[in-house]
Amino acid sequence: MEYRIERDTMGEVRVPADKYWGAQTQRSLENFRIGTDRFRMPLEIIRAYGMLKKAAARANLELGELPEEIAKAIIQAAEEVVQGKWDDHFPLVVFQTGSGTQTNMNVNEVIANRASEILGKPLGSKYAHPNDHVNRGQSSNDTFPTAMYVAVALALHQRLYPAVEGLIRTFTAKAQAFDQIVKVGRTHLMDAVPITLGQEIGSWAAQLKTTLAAVKEMEKGLYNLAIGGTAVGTGLNAHPRFGELVAKYLAEETGLPFRVAENRFAALAAHDELVNVMGAIRTLAGALMKIGNDVRWLASGPYAGIGEITIPANEPGSSIMPGKVNPTQVEALTMVVVRVYGNDHTVAFAGSQGNFQLNVYKPVMAYSTLESINLLADAVASFDAHLAQGIEPNLERIEEYLQKNPMLATALNKAIGYDKAAEIVKKALKEKKTLKQAALELGYLTEEEFDRIVVPMRLAKPHEGA
Amino acid sequence: MEYRIERDTMGEVRVPADKYWGAQTQRSLENFRIGTDRFRMPLEIIRAYGMLKKAAARANLELGELPEEIAKAIIQAAEEVVQGKWDDHFPLVVFQTGSGTQTNMNVNEVIANRASEILGKPLGSKYAHPNDHVNRGQSSNDTFPTAMYVAVALALHQRLYPAVEGLIRTFTAKAQAFDQIVKVGRTHLMDAVPITLGQEIGSWAAQLKTTLAAVKEMEKGLYNLAIGGTAVGTGLNAHPRFGELVAKYLAEETGLPFRVAENRFAALAAHDELVNVMGAIRTLAGALMKIGNDVRWLASGPYAGIGEITIPANEPGSSIMPGKVNPTQVEALTMVVVRVYGNDHTVAFAGSQGNFQLNVYKPVMAYSTLESINLLADAVASFDAHLAQGIEPNLERIEEYLQKNPMLATALNKAIGYDKAAEIVKKALKEKKTLKQAALELGYLTEEEFDRIVVPMRLAKPHEGA
Amino acid sequence: MEYRIERDTMGEVRVPADKYWGAQTQRSLENFRIGTDRFRMPLEIIRAYGMLKKAAARANLELGELPEEIAKAIIQAAEEVVQGKWDDHFPLVVFQTGSGTQTNMNVNEVIANRASEILGKPLGSKYAHPNDHVNRGQSSNDTFPTAMYVAVALALHQRLYPAVEGLIRTFTAKAQAFDQIVKVGRTHLMDAVPITLGQEIGSWAAQLKTTLAAVKEMEKGLYNLAIGGTAVGTGLNAHPRFGELVAKYLAEETGLPFRVAENRFAALAAHDELVNVMGAIRTLAGALMKIGNDVRWLASGPYAGIGEITIPANEPGSSIMPGKVNPTQVEALTMVVVRVYGNDHTVAFAGSQGNFQLNVYKPVMAYSTLESINLLADAVASFDAHLAQGIEPNLERIEEYLQKNPMLATALNKAIGYDKAAEIVKKALKEKKTLKQAALELGYLTEEEFDRIVVPMRLAKPHEGA
Amino acid sequence: MEYRIERDTMGEVRVPADKYWGAQTQRSLENFRIGTDRFRMPLEIIRAYGMLKKAAARANLELGELPEEIAKAIIQAAEEVVQGKWDDHFPLVVFQTGSGTQTNMNVNEVIANRASEILGKPLGSKYAHPNDHVNRGQSSNDTFPTAMYVAVALALHQRLYPAVEGLIRTFTAKAQAFDQIVKVGRTHLMDAVPITLGQEIGSWAAQLKTTLAAVKEMEKGLYNLAIGGTAVGTGLNAHPRFGELVAKYLAEETGLPFRVAENRFAALAAHDELVNVMGAIRTLAGALMKIGNDVRWLASGPYAGIGEITIPANEPGSSIMPGKVNPTQVEALTMVVVRVYGNDHTVAFAGSQGNFQLNVYKPVMAYSTLESINLLADAVASFDAHLAQGIEPNLERIEEYLQKNPMLATALNKAIGYDKAAEIVKKALKEKKTLKQAALELGYLTEEEFDRIVVPMRLAKPHEGA
Repeated sequence: MEYRIERDTMGEVRVPADKYWGAQTQRSLENFRIGTDRFRMPLEIIRAYGMLKKAAARANLELGELPEEIAKAIIQAAEEVVQGKWDDHFPLVVFQTGSGTQTNMNVNEVIANRASEILGKPLGSKYAHPNDHVNRGQSSNDTFPTAMYVAVALALHQRLYPAVEGLIRTFTAKAQAFDQIVKVGRTHLMDAVPITLGQEIGSWAAQLKTTLAAVKEMEKGLYNLAIGGTAVGTGLNAHPRFGELVAKYLAEETGLPFRVAENRFAALAAHDELVNVMGAIRTLAGALMKIGNDVRWLASGPYAGIGEITIPANEPGSSIMPGKVNPTQVEALTMVVVRVYGNDHTVAFAGSQGNFQLNVYKPVMAYSTLESINLLADAVASFDAHLAQGIEPNLERIEEYLQKNPMLATALNKAIGYDKAAEIVKKALKEKKTLKQAALELGYLTEEEFDRIVVPMRLAKPHEGA
Repeated sequence: MEYRIERDTMGEVRVPADKYWGAQTQRSLENFRIGTDRFRMPLEIIRAYGMLKKAAARANLELGELPEEIAKAIIQAAEEVVQGKWDDHFPLVVFQTGSGTQTNMNVNEVIANRASEILGKPLGSKYAHPNDHVNRGQSSNDTFPTAMYVAVALALHQRLYPAVEGLIRTFTAKAQAFDQIVKVGRTHLMDAVPITLGQEIGSWAAQLKTTLAAVKEMEKGLYNLAIGGTAVGTGLNAHPRFGELVAKYLAEETGLPFRVAENRFAALAAHDELVNVMGAIRTLAGALMKIGNDVRWLASGPYAGIGEITIPANEPGSSIMPGKVNPTQVEALTMVVVRVYGNDHTVAFAGSQGNFQLNVYKPVMAYSTLESINLLADAVASFDAHLAQGIEPNLERIEEYLQKNPMLATALNKAIGYDKAAEIVKKALKEKKTLKQAALELGYLTEEEFDRIVVPMRLAKPHEGA
Repeated sequence: MEYRIERDTMGEVRVPADKYWGAQTQRSLENFRIGTDRFRMPLEIIRAYGMLKKAAARANLELGELPEEIAKAIIQAAEEVVQGKWDDHFPLVVFQTGSGTQTNMNVNEVIANRASEILGKPLGSKYAHPNDHVNRGQSSNDTFPTAMYVAVALALHQRLYPAVEGLIRTFTAKAQAFDQIVKVGRTHLMDAVPITLGQEIGSWAAQLKTTLAAVKEMEKGLYNLAIGGTAVGTGLNAHPRFGELVAKYLAEETGLPFRVAENRFAALAAHDELVNVMGAIRTLAGALMKIGNDVRWLASGPYAGIGEITIPANEPGSSIMPGKVNPTQVEALTMVVVRVYGNDHTVAFAGSQGNFQLNVYKPVMAYSTLESINLLADAVASFDAHLAQGIEPNLERIEEYLQKNPMLATALNKAIGYDKAAEIVKKALKEKKTLKQAALELGYLTEEEFDRIVVPMRLAKPHEGA
Repeated sequence: MEYRIERDTMGEVRVPADKYWGAQTQRSLENFRIGTDRFRMPLEIIRAYGMLKKAAARANLELGELPEEIAKAIIQAAEEVVQGKWDDHFPLVVFQTGSGTQTNMNVNEVIANRASEILGKPLGSKYAHPNDHVNRGQSSNDTFPTAMYVAVALALHQRLYPAVEGLIRTFTAKAQAFDQIVKVGRTHLMDAVPITLGQEIGSWAAQLKTTLAAVKEMEKGLYNLAIGGTAVGTGLNAHPRFGELVAKYLAEETGLPFRVAENRFAALAAHDELVNVMGAIRTLAGALMKIGNDVRWLASGPYAGIGEITIPANEPGSSIMPGKVNPTQVEALTMVVVRVYGNDHTVAFAGSQGNFQLNVYKPVMAYSTLESINLLADAVASFDAHLAQGIEPNLERIEEYLQKNPMLATALNKAIGYDKAAEIVKKALKEKKTLKQAALELGYLTEEEFDRIVVPMRLAKPHEGA
């Protein structure tokens, strides 16, 4: 490999000749061989950093803090980073300095070298200087949290929300389609009063709606950016209007209402907004666990399970049991859920460990949140396409259960009281009789009364019609 | 002990003669000897249940679902439960049926017996019937989640919010008082550019404000009550307007805008709103961990620590080291924090484990959330009264550190560039010289320039005055 | 209330006249109103402290470090603490100083006052001195971890092990009793090749055995006591042989092989052994979650669930659905499990937060572990007595499922290959035929061959007989 | 791209012509686009599967269950998988079917095609059949847990143990080197009685030793393999001696004492041994958190922190503060720790969610454990090489603190009692005098007595010499 020499305040370093990065990136590469490859700093962060550096150069240009020539070259180079043109030039891993300084410098170095090149200067010349120009008015301590909030907010909008909303649409359509299918309800896993299959699936849509709404509510916290706080929150070395302008440009670029955090000391020292977002994502994941479990139980069987619904058979289920079909999409989904729970734990633990003016767990917090968002988005979309859209009722089984349902007796409470209704159920179960038989034998109602009261669909929708 | 005989659908049971509870409570007492005493169902839940049963009787009376005599006696008895008159009559533990049925029946039985007594009927007579009257139009499955949302919302308002707001006031006052005290900032635990002590403490107030605001935002989810859904969400056996009326009366009684949940199937099958509240409480707890750690580190010493602040000496600190004083209030607070983290884990795990029409982890979810709220409220109030209000600066130490702070060189970046500023710092550290000496020896600035630029207060508040 | 004056190095304090505690206990009572009542320091810790103070006085007597008269009075007073005679004299809560100093002083003060009283001296006289005599050669920093390891080890032996071993016995007996009942197996919730009910229940016993064995293995770490390390691990102010002698006396008293930790610095600064014990308890809890879920699913129904087993009906299951019976013991058990998971989180978080020579999360670690042990012991015993012992097979249902089981075709793999066996299953499912019909129609086997190969019991026990 | 047609029981599928995988792998690729690339099934699992398939073919050959020609080709092909020759042929992700069936089939298909090729037969010919030959006597349900236990055990031996043992050696050497450096101890972050720097660092080595020993103890559980249980634990379709022989060959190949699990039903339905291993790894991670924090606090400053040690300056610490050096290796390490805590949560949650004869969270459990092992191994090695080995004492600072240490007064307890010693400390602190001055002024000791008793090194090592 060919090398060139790059320089930082600690001295000279050899860097691959075909890479834009500089001395500090190279040092980090050599000093942090931790999870190499698997744990590269996510490209979402790199792209958000590109937007940020572009916005910063625009702001500095407007505020007279950078020469026009330099600023424009930086803007172009940063835009190229946003476009993904230099993805190979960001080799650092997540497990580096906890402020993300090395990634900030990686971005500064790549943009500085590329900007120098644009201006016809050699790499390593620092004609556009990574610290004095690209990082002008900034610190890792305010840029990294800014980049991570921008990256997470965008990932939510671009990946999680569409996937979950798609599944909500699927469930809503199924709920409507199955609105007239009355079936046994289940509480404590035991037969309970009837519901419709539409109501059951509708409750899944409802859970997704409310938990997604909470994620969106918490997402608003991410709009408060640390930028302008520089090293400790005071804004030292930044123009007084710098932060506000950068936020404005970021808002323009992303369409999200970014602004400067009210307290920038807190914005560097803690990332409570991110912890809250992750917590709300976890609740959404918990809802998916419940829904996924419902689906696989309802589809269990074919004979020795519940079997009220069927789901698509996408692949052979067993290497040894021929003809077996399994709810594999649910399994993938719920494995993602437990992973998200773990990531939430990581983020919340990390969020509590700041000291003084800085929390130094930023990269792992950003990474774990982005991983959660991406995995959930993928798994929900996969579950939607390969399973949810193919859910169909098994009407025969549903009807069979419904007919035997002893909890239909609940409808009798009002007419004869809870105690007598219980007597009927007990007699029916013990003597293996129908509820009606038991009721008539006990003499608590006439057949006519029984037939008028015990109508499954009316139990499932007691307040509709009459 | 004297006994009377009570009866339920399973038969007769002996019950202590001086207790209002009935057969089902007694069975639960005998069948669930799990954490007896320590894990009694919280009185917050019992009181909320009292409010709920009162509201239910009012609604049923208004809707013509209960005879006036019975309804009025129930209202009176339920009000007595709210007043705490019968606290000894609720002996059940948290670890019972997961729907809270046994506590619902405990409440039903106590109120039914007490109402019968009010009406001159013997205990056990079921003149006022626990199921047919007190539980009219209700199920455990919709009342328990209703009671737990009411209880948690009230606990937040009555206990957590005042405590945290008190601490915010204390910190805000301290931040103002110490606004002019410039000190070294710290990032990565290392000396960084200066801030004021007021800024540092102000960031604690800011963290508490934003994390408390998130709790309040998530609390809104609790206003959506399951009531009216009865056993599975369909509302079977309840008057169509029952839920809405109960919610109205609960809103009147509590001053909180309770309403009926949009999807009552989901309201029984999941408690995502509670999981979200607990998640937000956890974030608040994480902020307190950070703040507590800052406080004890700043107060560490007296000689071999940081020692920039002093805190009250409330008690001898050591059984063996005479004269030792420790940051014990912080220790109590951060022990509460780790407990809250654990409780959050419990609640989120439980929240994911519903099946079909019911989540059967309700009591442990309610208990763990209420425990967290109460512990945090207590610990924050204690920390406020016994520590935060007594924080004082150690001006001598603060000044000593500030004078030596090598990071003041950051102010030179703009004048001479990052690389030369770094050279000055390295020289100063290596040769144990002041920054100014190093700067002058390197010839990068004149003394006058140095003195004009390197003014700690101006570094701490770069955008104020001039 | 009547008071007397007690004194510590900070001055005078009023103490209730009828209590043995002194000034420091009183200060803690007033300064730490956090979780009062609910969160009293567990009596297990107080008793263990009693044993420890007795052992310490014996050791100091033997080593000539205490006058005989004082030592003997301390031994007597400490023994009374062990006997539970003074339980009301230990009012402090868990959320106090993180070293447990206040509880150590509470014990020192109670024993000192009681010993003084035994010797005819007035309370508060310090004739037997809490620090100089009762705490001789000790610090909170080595006594609290010693007491907590002793308390946890004893709680494991006295409470958790017997309960879990009882349940293992129950399952083992059931496994033998149901050894000949062949039933459908289930993987991915789907019908799979057959097993016996005995094998299924036997796997529960096996899980409990291996997870309990891991708890016992980890428990061994608790035998390594901090005692003798005093304030920071150096053993300053303790006789060189003190720790070793105390451990010997504690071993005598408890029957457990306590000894002095190899590295007493680590024994104060961290409690990794406790974290490991808690982790192993959590795994056991996880096994109980799996077992509990299996039980309730197998018992689900009565009609619209799996219904292969029946469990005792201990109480009415619903306040609205008459005659309903629910798996409430499982629900109590699995609620305990999620609580234990939360406690494990608390303990592991706390365990990571030590600094330098001390971890100041000791009380919450001890409390959360003891709570977990006690809750699990109670819940397992309750589940055993009220549910497990009453498990019975529903032979009719079991047989019905078995007959329909399509996975019996797996037995054909060897004879005709996986691909043809799959063809048979698919044909049978699609055309609603029996496997045999499908097999014969496809012409892959003769009826005789089929009947010889497809014998459920032989599939369940392929390696028995022939 | 060129394709060929592969076939499974569901029909035909197009597969890239240059890949060995077959129809089921291809279906999985298309159906599970979840975390593509980042979440590929770890190569550790693939390699372990290679060993397993090799051992299985050897066993089947020996038992007469496979034709020699086929068996030998499988053995060769499997060995090539072990050698990493076909890494590109295992494209599936972790989030697939929860039994790992698709990865088992991926391995079966690759080996079958490669074996067919070796025998001169075309790909897709199934001359060596993926199910009937490569998977002979096996199921995903017993092979995947076998592969994951083998993979995790090997990763522990090859990666985690050497890294941690290296760090233990470094700390042990430092402890010896700094054995004579007396310094202030710290408890509650407050100055406490003295220790040596060697003792302090020695306690880190001790923590690592005991927590590593617990991992090794728990690792033993992994030696119990599921192999031979096939689909549900009964061993259907496997030769009675198959499991035992496979375990023997695996033991030969790995040098680890693998054997068949005592209860193979439990071995499929739960992975408690893995949960226990992960729990023990978490405790080790918690110890590293404590150690890492100690290191960075001791190195904090240079002026406004503790500064008792210096650590290597590996890279510029700040993009804005010139000359800043940060404890970045600690930050990377503790970020790994919080990640490991999260993974532990994932594994323990997943471990509790088995149903009946199968736990379907296997891949995420294996992945999260392996990730933890690899990250910890990397981070510990990096911390060792780039930080721990370069720790040096700052003797000047250490001495300065020691001289001022008020807790030296603890040595006076025995001579004058705790109360008088406390009086001396209080006077010294209040009047800013030395302890000796205060002691003499109070007249509690002569100067000679004071000087004889208060000797820091004797306080640090009270039981050495005399």
